[in-house]
Amino acid sequence: MRYGIIGVGGVGGYYGGKLAHAGNDVHFLFHSDYEHVVANGLRVDSCDGSFVLPHVNAYRQAADMPKCDVVLVALKTVNEQLLKDLLPPVVGTDTLVVLIQNGIGVESDVQAWLPGVQLAAGLAFICSAKAGPGYVNHQCYGSINIGNYSCRDDNRINELINDLHVAGIEAAAVEYSEARWKKAVWNMPFNGLTVTLNTQTDKLLANPATEQLVRDMMMEVVEASRALGVENVDEPFVEKMMSMTRVMTPYSPSMKLDYENRRPMEIGYIYSRPLAIARQFGAPMPKLEMLEAQLRFIESQSK
Amino acid sequence: MRYGIIGVGGVGGYYGGKLAHAGNDVHFLFHSDYEHVVANGLRVDSCDGSFVLPHVNAYRQAADMPKCDVVLVALKTVNEQLLKDLLPPVVGTDTLVVLIQNGIGVESDVQAWLPGVQLAAGLAFICSAKAGPGYVNHQCYGSINIGNYSCRDDNRINELINDLHVAGIEAAAVEYSEARWKKAVWNMPFNGLTVTLNTQTDKLLANPATEQLVRDMMMEVVEASRALGVENVDEPFVEKMMSMTRVMTPYSPSMKLDYENRRPMEIGYIYSRPLAIARQFGAPMPKLEMLEAQLRFIESQSK
Repeated sequence: MRYGIIGVGGVGGYYGGKLAHAGNDVHFLFHSDYEHVVANGLRVDSCDGSFVLPHVNAYRQAADMPKCDVVLVALKTVNEQLLKDLLPPVVGTDTLVVLIQNGIGVESDVQAWLPGVQLAAGLAFICSAKAGPGYVNHQCYGSINIGNYSCRDDNRINELINDLHVAGIEAAAVEYSEARWKKAVWNMPFNGLTVTLNTQTDKLLANPATEQLVRDMMMEVVEASRALGVENVDEPFVEKMMSMTRVMTPYSPSMKLDYENRRPMEIGYIYSRPLAIARQFGAPMPKLEMLEAQLRFIESQSK
Repeated sequence: MRYGIIGVGGVGGYYGGKLAHAGNDVHFLFHSDYEHVVANGLRVDSCDGSFVLPHVNAYRQAADMPKCDVVLVALKTVNEQLLKDLLPPVVGTDTLVVLIQNGIGVESDVQAWLPGVQLAAGLAFICSAKAGPGYVNHQCYGSINIGNYSCRDDNRINELINDLHVAGIEAAAVEYSEARWKKAVWNMPFNGLTVTLNTQTDKLLANPATEQLVRDMMMEVVEASRALGVENVDEPFVEKMMSMTRVMTPYSPSMKLDYENRRPMEIGYIYSRPLAIARQFGAPMPKLEMLEAQLRFIESQSK
């Protein structure tokens, strides 16, 4: 299969790099790193084994890329609109586009912009960041779940999962809505609270007031999922997320890293969209709504 | 009437100073400022006319003070328990104790500690701060409303209001519960949000997200008041508070000043107590509950 990678940061660079390293035909769309990668290749430092790809199929513009069988999109959602132009050149009738992106609503938007495209959600559990031009630093974890959104051919998803396995990546097929909302159970409390309270996951759980707040927010997502008819997003899952977070290394979620590095925060798809959907289904999430407002304020002050 | 002033900061120093300046018999309990005041008197810089009281009735201990007809308490509520010892020496059978303090629940606690004492709430609308030892800086406003909590003699309250008028202070009698909860409508959103978002009133209202959040929080207090059967705490009052705040000078509420000056914040009576009462009456205030949790976290981190 031919792979296209759109968004070669910590996540796209890792998965694309691993697939290429395993011998797959991978085509990378670069932005500012193009020249550096053409001259020096792509470097991946990884807890699972580091490697350098001296020669990669690098492109400066999507228009120059070939049609691909699978496109992995790992762009930050703050520029989601760019996909209107970036996807058409690489997408053919049988192409599967996997959106390895945060939040709720990315598939629905991309589907509306490009009605025929076959989409899946990529839910990555990974700590990986761009450490420099053409240089990915993969610290830990790395598994990815694939949730079919509008792919007409299950085989395509199975082939992708197989290629990921061969490349040494844990991957599995999951139910789309359940996976997206389960991810929201963790993402919605921790991304915003680590920003508004300038802290990390461990400190939020060590303080009884914020520990309860995190749990309340997770339960708001559970109630919203229930109203939407999404299954298995329940109290036992909340307890599982609380326990998992307690044993994790003190962690700064992606929004905290974005904020610290003065990059725009993904408030739209991580907060505004799921909040709007939940409201529409009669399940407002008041504490998460408040968190969204605080983040909007912080964003406006940092401009 | 003989007056006692317990807590001679920006508020107690202003009202006590004005009453003494007008010729009333006023007795001040000082803490660290005692020596300075005995040597230099009490200085009040005020937008309504500055003055110095060269000789004041100053005490270092409540036990040395005479019984008073009216005691004005202007202590921060973080040390509310001190009143168990500070009040008995100055309180006789006919004494009125006016708690010029923030939040909900101070009268109920003091009443429980000292069952016979006659209490009223003092709701001050004032910008005044201690600027140095024995030195009060009164910037603007200055009116005070008195809400009878357990005073058996309405005349006592009327005499107090009359003395305040003569001293040049706007004062009026108000319904106790309505006044306390109306004050909470403004205090609960602005005190905490200016701390968590490190900002002032004007910026919160200039941003559409936090403007809505402030309104939502005010409406939570309205709903709680309704559940408690407190009258006239309604939507028109919320609109009045929003408009008033919009025309105010950019303002840092007392909790913001406490936080900036690394003093303990009055989270207990401004948040925890009204939240507990509202929950008890079946009217949870989820966004204010979240604000309380964030403040508890901030408080724990600053220790």
